[in-house]
Amino acid sequence: MKKFQVVGIGNAMVDILAHTDEEFLAENGIGKGIMQLIDMERAVSLYDQVGPAREISGGSAANTIAGIAALGGRTAYIGKVCDDQLGAIFAHDLRAQGAVYKTPMAPRDSAQETGRCIVLVTPDGERSMNTYLGWSENLAPEDIDEDLLRDAEWLYLEGYRFDGPDSHAAFAQAIATTRAAGGRVALTLSDPFCVERHRAAFRMMIQADVDLLFANRAELLSMYETTDFDAALKAAASEVAIVAGTDSANGVHVLAEGQHWHVPAVPSRVTDATGAGDMFAGAFLWALAEGRSLSDCGRLGNIAASEVIGHIGARPEADLRALFAAHGAL
Amino acid sequence: MKKFQVVGIGNAMVDILAHTDEEFLAENGIGKGIMQLIDMERAVSLYDQVGPAREISGGSAANTIAGIAALGGRTAYIGKVCDDQLGAIFAHDLRAQGAVYKTPMAPRDSAQETGRCIVLVTPDGERSMNTYLGWSENLAPEDIDEDLLRDAEWLYLEGYRFDGPDSHAAFAQAIATTRAAGGRVALTLSDPFCVERHRAAFRMMIQADVDLLFANRAELLSMYETTDFDAALKAAASEVAIVAGTDSANGVHVLAEGQHWHVPAVPSRVTDATGAGDMFAGAFLWALAEGRSLSDCGRLGNIAASEVIGHIGARPEADLRALFAAHGAL
Repeated sequence: MKKFQVVGIGNAMVDILAHTDEEFLAENGIGKGIMQLIDMERAVSLYDQVGPAREISGGSAANTIAGIAALGGRTAYIGKVCDDQLGAIFAHDLRAQGAVYKTPMAPRDSAQETGRCIVLVTPDGERSMNTYLGWSENLAPEDIDEDLLRDAEWLYLEGYRFDGPDSHAAFAQAIATTRAAGGRVALTLSDPFCVERHRAAFRMMIQADVDLLFANRAELLSMYETTDFDAALKAAASEVAIVAGTDSANGVHVLAEGQHWHVPAVPSRVTDATGAGDMFAGAFLWALAEGRSLSDCGRLGNIAASEVIGHIGARPEADLRALFAAHGAL
Repeated sequence: MKKFQVVGIGNAMVDILAHTDEEFLAENGIGKGIMQLIDMERAVSLYDQVGPAREISGGSAANTIAGIAALGGRTAYIGKVCDDQLGAIFAHDLRAQGAVYKTPMAPRDSAQETGRCIVLVTPDGERSMNTYLGWSENLAPEDIDEDLLRDAEWLYLEGYRFDGPDSHAAFAQAIATTRAAGGRVALTLSDPFCVERHRAAFRMMIQADVDLLFANRAELLSMYETTDFDAALKAAASEVAIVAGTDSANGVHVLAEGQHWHVPAVPSRVTDATGAGDMFAGAFLWALAEGRSLSDCGRLGNIAASEVIGHIGARPEADLRALFAAHGAL
């Protein structure tokens, strides 16, 4: 048995969550429901304009890893922060949840600070993300802890992390190390605009190295440049062993071994959609590593996602295993 | 009309809120339901042991001022932070709520960082506070912005702020400036152990300069060294024009002009008691400045407190004026 069920790589950051309205998004040219990269100047100007906020650790893959740890899974994370107050918060929250996190912190006086994401939550519960990558964008091949990856059943790659100067080389090294040790590779496409920025590189990675693809409807349509969700799902399934295609309130489609399961979503009130996809992936990966069937993986993913959209913040708050048990799904 | 209805002075800090259980409090020698001062070493050791947390601006008087600002009141705050990430969060949240906050930030490389409070919330909703004062404890007479105070109808003093080398002199200067310009002085006793540390000095201040005293049952019993709540209330009323003595689920006693009103609490489920007293004081002071009757002030205070104990964190989340209207109290 390998030491880790899942090792994730992503942008390490703290979320700054504030409520806002549609007008604010429009006035500030903020794309609703997506992630946009911003520089420090824009981060300061936007923060000055939003109302009182709260800070909760975030980062897409880090949320997934936190979810796996919350489920009692064996998991670790690679991603870069600075030795500043936000970096300390990020590291604490991941370790306190039970994940291994030992990527060295950059010195406090580095050129960039720890990354942050200004998450604007509208009354409908949708989240619009404004990300200052900060130090997290400097992930390079030398940050890839090969000991961790040799000990990983699954490597989980965050699509967002593809933005940045040395990211592609870092991903390539992580994939090579994992595969050489017999591990498998999962990728999340993260965001439709992230797919636009990196379509060709993602496609090559998917065809060559990805065993499990997480993507929502918009991301799959963008990846396969079609308006037909079913066609996009089939195209992905022709390239990857397992496809988990989420479709928000319409549930998830799991395609593998020539089969196609549709697993309905768990009805829930959306307080804050931040982290729904991350938590879905966390529970899905954990269930897969625990040897559950693929339709069960989808079901547990949906239950876990329903927990995280019921409150502010992308990290789980309830006892997820108790929640699975309450759904008769453990 | 003065520019500010209320100017508050207190310990500026960010709360780090984590859930825990009774055993953790016992094992770590943490007094339940009270505030204990800790040094940086203890702050680091405690933080290492608690689970995933979230960060929300706090500070007792700052919560009160944020509440007044949320109600649309004219209000300002004096308290010290550093130019670090937690300091930026504190300043943002107060200003974004509509309060004036212009106390200069200490340089980032100061000997202490911005203060923080590790708030441990037990399943019963009670909060046990572990405060690293950090830079906030250095408040001195030169930090007292006399222009603000000359423009204040009410000065609101946080009892907690009495801990620290130059605090008494700073308070004395703030009181003198406020009174010379015709303003009145309110004080909260903050915590029974804070009263123990400063009983004589508090008593002198109350007798000489305080027009409105906020205190809960435990604080009043400690102040007047009695086990008889009614006797403590009467003793306070003999020294101060207005006494607001809170008694958690039993409501509040308001004593003034020889009269005694008992205002029942608003029934509510306690998720996190952090900030209940702060929010009570905020709504009470705002209502008083708006010319409401003293029993109305108590009623609005109770409604506002019920909002803040219904969620994690000490700052209001709901529209308080809408809440007052829903209770037929606006």
